[in-house]
Amino acid sequence: MAIVATTHFADRLADAVERKRSQLVVGLDPRPDLLPVELRGEAQSGRAGAAAACERFCRGLVDAVAPYVVAVKPQVAFFEALGADGVQALEEVCAYSRAVGLQVIADGKRGDIGSTARAYATAFLEGDPPLADALTVNPYLGRDSLEPFLAACRREGAGLFCVVKTSNAGSSDVQDLALSDGRPVWQHVAELVRDCGEELLGDRGLSAVGAVIGATYPRAVGEARRLLPRSVLLLPGVGAQGATPADVARAFTSGPASALVNVSRDVIYAFRVSGMDWRSAAAAEASRYAREVWAVSGW
Amino acid sequence: MAIVATTHFADRLADAVERKRSQLVVGLDPRPDLLPVELRGEAQSGRAGAAAACERFCRGLVDAVAPYVVAVKPQVAFFEALGADGVQALEEVCAYSRAVGLQVIADGKRGDIGSTARAYATAFLEGDPPLADALTVNPYLGRDSLEPFLAACRREGAGLFCVVKTSNAGSSDVQDLALSDGRPVWQHVAELVRDCGEELLGDRGLSAVGAVIGATYPRAVGEARRLLPRSVLLLPGVGAQGATPADVARAFTSGPASALVNVSRDVIYAFRVSGMDWRSAAAAEASRYAREVWAVSGW
Repeated sequence: MAIVATTHFADRLADAVERKRSQLVVGLDPRPDLLPVELRGEAQSGRAGAAAACERFCRGLVDAVAPYVVAVKPQVAFFEALGADGVQALEEVCAYSRAVGLQVIADGKRGDIGSTARAYATAFLEGDPPLADALTVNPYLGRDSLEPFLAACRREGAGLFCVVKTSNAGSSDVQDLALSDGRPVWQHVAELVRDCGEELLGDRGLSAVGAVIGATYPRAVGEARRLLPRSVLLLPGVGAQGATPADVARAFTSGPASALVNVSRDVIYAFRVSGMDWRSAAAAEASRYAREVWAVSGW
Repeated sequence: MAIVATTHFADRLADAVERKRSQLVVGLDPRPDLLPVELRGEAQSGRAGAAAACERFCRGLVDAVAPYVVAVKPQVAFFEALGADGVQALEEVCAYSRAVGLQVIADGKRGDIGSTARAYATAFLEGDPPLADALTVNPYLGRDSLEPFLAACRREGAGLFCVVKTSNAGSSDVQDLALSDGRPVWQHVAELVRDCGEELLGDRGLSAVGAVIGATYPRAVGEARRLLPRSVLLLPGVGAQGATPADVARAFTSGPASALVNVSRDVIYAFRVSGMDWRSAAAAEASRYAREVWAVSGW
C-alpha cells in the first residue's frame, strides 16, 4: 500500500485514520523485567543486552499491531533508563515504525526555555529523517518554551501534543487549581494550546498542535473538546489505568481523526494475562481496542 | 583533598560550598556550532564526531572550572540533540565530573506519571554509580509524579530541583496565573515542593528537594526564599539572560549552601568574547562569578 505523503502531521494522521478505520495508538513502554520468556535471558545480560531485547520486543510489537493502529507512542523514559544503548534502541524502533508506515509520537514531555527547547526540537522533530513525527511537550514554562517546537511544525510538518490534563490522580495538584476566574489551570493551558495551534491548520481543518487529556477524566475530555475544536486530542488512560473506550466517545465530534486513544500495557503485555504468544496477544488486543474505539467514535 | 562522603545531597553540597567558598554551578550546554576552533573540525564530521567534540569540550571545561564551582549542570537537551552518541557523551561527562569531586545536576526537567517517572528516576538517579547526583523535574503533573524521584532521594541520597518559577519571559503564561486566593500558581507549586521536602532534611537542615527560581525575577527569589526556608534554590538567569549576582543576594539567608547560582554561556563560551584560550577564559569567568556570588551571599 502506498504511504500517503503530505507535509502536515494532522493530514498524515487523518489519512491513516480513514484508511485503517482506527484511532488507536499503542504505547511502547518496554520494561526488561516484563519481557516475554524468549527475550528474558538477553534482557538480563547487562544494559546493552536489555536494550537489544527491548528493541526486539518493540519491533515485534510494531509488526503485530501495525494493521490496527495509526501510530505508536514510544515512551522515552523506558529507553533512557537503559542509557545510551536504550536511546540507540529508541532510534531503531522509531525508524522501523516509520518504515512500516506508522506515525511515531515520541512521548518525552519535554519543556525548557528557548535555546534549550530548540535542542529538544532538534533531538526529536528535525533531521532527515527526524526521530519522530510528533512529540509530547509540557507547557509549564509558557508559550516561548513551545515556540521552537511550533517552528518544527511549520518547517518540518511535525506535530505536538501539549500536556493539558493528565490521567494520573495527582493531576489535580496543579492542573485543577482554581484560577481567579473560577476555571482550573488546565483550561487556561488549553486556551494557550488553541492559540499556538491556530496558525497551524492542515487541509482537513485539524491543527498540528494537539493536547494530551487523560481519558480517566471523561468530563475533562468533553470540556477539552469544546475548548479545542481544531486540536487532535491524545487520550491516555484507557485499559490498565481504568478508563474505557466509552469514556472518550465525545472526543471525536471534530472528525474521525480529531482524537487518538492510546493503550499501552493492556496491548503490549497482553501475553502476561492471556498466555498466548506475545505478538498474537498484542495483535488481538489492538484489533479489539481499534474496533471498540471506532464504534464509539461514531464515524 | 579527601572527598567528604555523606549520603544526603544537601549535606554533600554544603560541604563543598564551605570548602570551596563558592555557590557557583556551571551549566554545560555544548553546541557543536559554537565550539572552539580546535574542536570545530571534529564537531562537523557527523553526529558521532560532534558528540566526541562536545565531550572533549565538556571535559576541558570541567577541569578548568572545578576549583571554583561546587557542581556542573549538564543540559540534557544539548546531548540528546546528538542522539545516542550524545547520550553516551553525557554519561562520560557526568562520570568524569563526579570523579573530580563535583556534584552533577542533570538538567532534564523530566516529569511524567508514576510508572514512567520511575523509569526517569532510574535513568538519572539510580544505579551504581548513578548518572547524576540530582535532577531538575517539572511539577505540572502533580505530587504523585514526583514520588519516584523522592524515593530516589530517600534511598540513594539523590537531590531534586523542582521547576517553580523559571527565568524566561514566558514563565508568566502559566506560572504567574492568579489563583482564586490571589496568589500566582508558582507560589502554590512552591508549597508543594516544601511539603515534598519536609521529610528529606539533611544534617545541615537543608532538604534534598530544591527549587529552580529564575534570577531574572529578583522579587520572586525573595518570596521563594520565604516560602521555602529549607530548600536549596537553584538560580539560573545570571549572565547572558541578564540577571546579576546582586539580584540573588536574598536567596542565601537560609545558609551559605541554601542557594546555587548557575551560569552557563557566560562561562563556557567566554573565549568567544575574550579571545583567550577557551579553558583559561572559562576558568577566569568561573573564578570571577564565584567570588562575586560569595560576596553578595554575605557568608
